[in-house]
Parts: sequence; structure tokens; C-alpha cells
Amino acid sequence: VQHHLLKPEPGPAPETSIVVGAGALDALPITVQGAPLVLAVADRSLARGPVGEAVRARLAAAEVRTELFAIEASEQAKSLAAVSALWDAWLEAGAGRDAVVVAVGGGIITDVTGFAAASYLRGIPWVAIPTTVIGIADAAIGGKTGVNLSRGKNLVGAIHPPRAVLADFDLLASLPDEDYRDGWSEVVKAGVIADAPLLADLTARAQRILARDPVAMEETLIRAIAVKAAVVEKDLLEGSRREILNFGHTVGHALEHATGNTLSHGRAVAAGMVAEAVLAVTLGRLGQDAPELIATACGALGIPWRVESTIDEAAFVAALSVDKKRRAGRIRVALPDSLGAHSSSPSVEVDPQDLVAALHVASRMAS
Amino acid sequence: VQHHLLKPEPGPAPETSIVVGAGALDALPITVQGAPLVLAVADRSLARGPVGEAVRARLAAAEVRTELFAIEASEQAKSLAAVSALWDAWLEAGAGRDAVVVAVGGGIITDVTGFAAASYLRGIPWVAIPTTVIGIADAAIGGKTGVNLSRGKNLVGAIHPPRAVLADFDLLASLPDEDYRDGWSEVVKAGVIADAPLLADLTARAQRILARDPVAMEETLIRAIAVKAAVVEKDLLEGSRREILNFGHTVGHALEHATGNTLSHGRAVAAGMVAEAVLAVTLGRLGQDAPELIATACGALGIPWRVESTIDEAAFVAALSVDKKRRAGRIRVALPDSLGAHSSSPSVEVDPQDLVAALHVASRMAS
Repeated sequence: VQHHLLKPEPGPAPETSIVVGAGALDALPITVQGAPLVLAVADRSLARGPVGEAVRARLAAAEVRTELFAIEASEQAKSLAAVSALWDAWLEAGAGRDAVVVAVGGGIITDVTGFAAASYLRGIPWVAIPTTVIGIADAAIGGKTGVNLSRGKNLVGAIHPPRAVLADFDLLASLPDEDYRDGWSEVVKAGVIADAPLLADLTARAQRILARDPVAMEETLIRAIAVKAAVVEKDLLEGSRREILNFGHTVGHALEHATGNTLSHGRAVAAGMVAEAVLAVTLGRLGQDAPELIATACGALGIPWRVESTIDEAAFVAALSVDKKRRAGRIRVALPDSLGAHSSSPSVEVDPQDLVAALHVASRMAS
Repeated sequence: VQHHLLKPEPGPAPETSIVVGAGALDALPITVQGAPLVLAVADRSLARGPVGEAVRARLAAAEVRTELFAIEASEQAKSLAAVSALWDAWLEAGAGRDAVVVAVGGGIITDVTGFAAASYLRGIPWVAIPTTVIGIADAAIGGKTGVNLSRGKNLVGAIHPPRAVLADFDLLASLPDEDYRDGWSEVVKAGVIADAPLLADLTARAQRILARDPVAMEETLIRAIAVKAAVVEKDLLEGSRREILNFGHTVGHALEHATGNTLSHGRAVAAGMVAEAVLAVTLGRLGQDAPELIATACGALGIPWRVESTIDEAAFVAALSVDKKRRAGRIRVALPDSLGAHSSSPSVEVDPQDLVAALHVASRMAS
């Protein structure tokens, strides 16, 4: 018997150019330059509106052959069937490895499209054009892609960073108010885990943010992107450091699940952050005032973080146990070390009942 | 508008421990050590026989919880449906990210199972136990995984190297003669692209190889593995160098397609190698004797490399054009620079008619 160690030379780093601000979409032609074919995949509800028009205009200016595909943006449609339909359509369009995919939409669209790009011919490049706050601050950055299975969310996928993210605030213009507000919970999260002053700045700028003032958006969204990018740079392949991005999401996902997805993602994460912050206080990781500061920022941004006392506790505990981060029956929760700071191994193992207790304390908070 | 370049730090190298020789399977317990759950996926036709028994015995010795899944090994079953069924079964078994997948079978099984592992929870580790010559010499090594779509083979997949390959000659005992012989065309290929003496050695040892003499197998298969591993080490992510592994396959795949998969993969690749070598002679890359040397080695190993003159030329040309390596309508063919040597960019673009002509010349060869 002989042994041979196959040790691949490091390949090219999967770099992502992030362009942020009103007008970022103007960079689209350069990201697809030289490609014989662009596969543009857009949220069906945006494809025929001003967003689709803006994207089409930039691609026309790029003078590349473009095929446009409109897909459904719902958790039900974030499925293997949707990915499979894209593959068939791309083959039909004659797309080879030199084609470039452009995904236009919120997190569902970039997740589905990015996964389709990751697996098509074993991987072709893609560009993300997020059209929601959550997409800009979180979903489009970092290369996580994937779809749901009937048993749960994001159970299959790939790490496949886009070659570029064009985060253009102008594309948020037609976003419904509730969806717009909802996304800011991920910006609050960025503050809690790595930029403490951002929390106060969000609270102070909340009115301007809610009025969609581009300056206030730029002053805050760019910092959330910087937080996300810094974490991903140190841990693209999901070692332990990246788990900090899950702050608020262990409880948040379980709340979404336990309410049959009637709670929006932003509200669920807001509630999750307050509850997990309560837990972090008991573990000596956050000061007594942290849950209050988080709740205040969320409240100011119009995100109702207080979950109805009607949450079914048994359903909540059951939902916690399907979380991907679970190991050996215990629940893993990623917590900051202090407000605005985290370590390279931020997760702690707790009993599901600890999270139930934290949720109760949070629901009795004053503000 | 602001720009930010996200440049991830290099992650851990996806190393593969390759254990080769009679008895290599004894290393199985150490490859799954510490995992709370092993997901063993085996070719249905092997699961209940001596191969399945041998694997089960080693896993029992490892004292880890094991779930065994038997799947179909056919090109029709190398499908998204098969991958999807594995994902559901693994979720049902409660598999988290700390589970380890063990794939037992030929190239179809390792391709399907490796892709399922690549995408499950965005990637969990796997171990390949190839049970065919082609699996040992080629398919199990290098991390290419994937499935077919109705439009063609291997159209979706991932690069996800197994943490270990256990290439145990003892597992070849029950392989039917035709399948056994067939696999040696990949060993011939290794000689053509990177180990010229291997060609003559294969011809000289052909009788002992056909008698499944373990010493003759070890003396040759290990060199094919070394060739494959050396190419993959320099180009895991499918830059241009890795294309040399496709030698013989551009024509080979088209022949399989044009004959409705009635031609075995080994025969198709043997015929493809002879034809592509004829082309390489006309391009001054191989000496006049090269096609003959390749044909002689294939013939000695019992692989009928001469394809029936009944191949439908139009179907052959049409099949060439669906190849993944195609760019801008021309056909890309990967050729050695000389016998046993290749460069880092081995592909040339040719007209489909050049390959038709080469196939004709090959079919009129004497030996």
C-alpha cells in the first residue's frame, strides 16, 4: 500500500469588487466586458419595471448579447426546481463557461441565481445587483448561495462569490416601505458585531433613513458592507469566525419557522438580536444596556422587534433544533465579545431553554 | 459611489490523501475518525456483495454511527433526482456539517455522491472508495463531481475534492471483465500525456494486467494516479492546464453521444485517443508512430479502439458541438506537446471537420 498526498496549489482568490452608492449600476458594462453572452436573471416583479429597464439599458450600452430570464422571488420558489429551470434555459441559450450571469433582485434571487451559476458547468462567474436593503447590507456579499429543501431553508448551496456586487441605492426607490424598513435589521446587526458607533448613528439618522435620504443611506449602508466584507475576507469558507454573521439569526430563524413564516425576516432577526443580546448579558459578554440599545435602534427604524407573546414555545424549540449550526443536540449561538467586537470563534453552546428564557425577558423589556 | 475590494484570505487547501494498493480499505476507519455520523453511499449492485461487506466491516471497526444508502449506477440515474434523494435521506438521518460521506462505486457513484456532499449544507467532507479501474485511475481523483442533465453529461457539478481516496485493488475482484478492461484506456491516457514509458510498460504487462495480477496492477495504476494528481495539484480549479486530462475525450464523448451510448466509455476514449493523436501528428505535436503506439497498448489491453465505420458523421459533428470546452463555435481539443509531455495550455481550436478527417485516418490504420 502506498500513500500519496494530493496538495493543490492555491488557485486565484475569488475577489469581489463592491461598488456602492447611487449610480453604482453604471459599472455594469465593465463587469461583463468581453463575455460573449450575459445571462441576466431578474425578479419577475422588477424585470418589467424601472429596475429591469435600468439594467437592460446598461447591458445594451455594453454591446454584449444578453438573454433575460424572469423568476419568482418567494421562499417557495427558492427551490431546486427554479435552479434546474435556469440551467435548462442557459443551455438552451447556448451558454458556455465564458458566459456571465447577472442576478437582479433581493436575497432570494441572488441566492438562487448564484447557486445556479456555482454549479453550471461546475461554476461560471456572476455579478450581483441587490435591489433590497438586506441584499446590499448582507445577502449579496460573501458568496453564500443556495436554495431551500422542503425540510428547511438554505439546506443546499455553495460558496461562490460574485465577481462584482453593484449596490445602487437608486434601485431601492420602488421597494415597498415595509420591505425597506425590514432590511435595516441587518445594518443594526453589523453595528452590534463590529461597529458599536453605528448603532447610535442609526438611531440618530433613523428619520432621514426612513425618508430614504441618499446621504443618510450612504453614511450607514457602506459601514454595514465594510463589516460584512471584513468578516468574509477572514473566513470565506465558513470556519468559525463567519458564524458571528449569524448573530440574531439562531432565534430569528426559529421564530420565522415557528410562526409559519408569517413574521418577516427583518422582524424575526430584530427580535432574535434583542433576545440573543439578553443571553449575552447573562454570559457577561454584553453590558446591561445592550439589549435596550439594539431595541431602540430597531424601533427607531420602524422594525417592530417585540414578538407576540403568542409564539408557540414547543414549535420554537423544535425549530431551533433544525438549525444548521446545531452540533450534538445543543444549540450554537454566535455572540459578540462586547458591543461592536467579536472573536474568531464567537459561538457558544447553550440549551434551547436558555433561548426561551431570553425571549421571555426580552418580551418584558420596557422600551 | 465608493469602491471596495473584497479579497478573501486563502482558506485551507483541500488536500486529498490517496491510499493505493491491495488492502487500502484498511485506512477507512481513520478517515472517518471523530465524525458522529457516516453517510455511506454505495452502488446498489455492490452494497450487498463482498465490496459492501468489506466497507461495512471497516466502518463497524471504526465504531461510528453509519447510515447506508444504496443507489443506482447508470447514466440515467446520474441525475439531479438522485442527488436530491440523497439530500432528503441525509436530512432524515439528521446529518449535520460534521457528518462524513463515504462513496463506494465507480465514477457515476463518486460523481453523484461527491456533488451531493459538495452542496449539502454548502459542503461536507467525503471519502471516495473507487471500485473500478477508471475510478481508481481517474474519476475519484481531482474533485470533479456532478450529474447529467437531459441535454448532456456532467453539465452541473462542483469541484469538491474528497478528503481521502482509498484505491483498493481487492475491490476490483468482482468487476466484470469488460468493465475491467475498459478502464485501462484512462491509464493509457496517463502515459500519453505525462509518462511515455508507461505506454510500453502497459503493452509489455498487458497479459498480466488482464489476468488481474496485483503486482502488474500496482506497477501501472499508481503511475496513472501520480499523473492525474500532478495535473490536479497545479490546476484544481480548471484553468487551462487541467484540460490535458481531456485528451481523447473530445472525440470520445462525441462518439458516445453519436452512438446513443452503445459504445462503452473506455472504447470511445480509446478511439478518441487514436483519432486525436492522428490530429496531433498533423499539427507536429506527436511523432508519426504515436497513434500506432496508443492503438497497440489499447489493443493489448483488450480495448477495441477501432470504431465501426457506421458512425453517423452528422450525429458525430452535432455531438462535438455540445462539448463544454467549446468556445465561439470552434472545437477545443487538448493535445500533448510530445509523447508523455504537455504544456500549461494544451488546448488548440480546430474545425469539427479536422476531427472527422482524423477519425477516418485512424479507422484505416493497419494495427
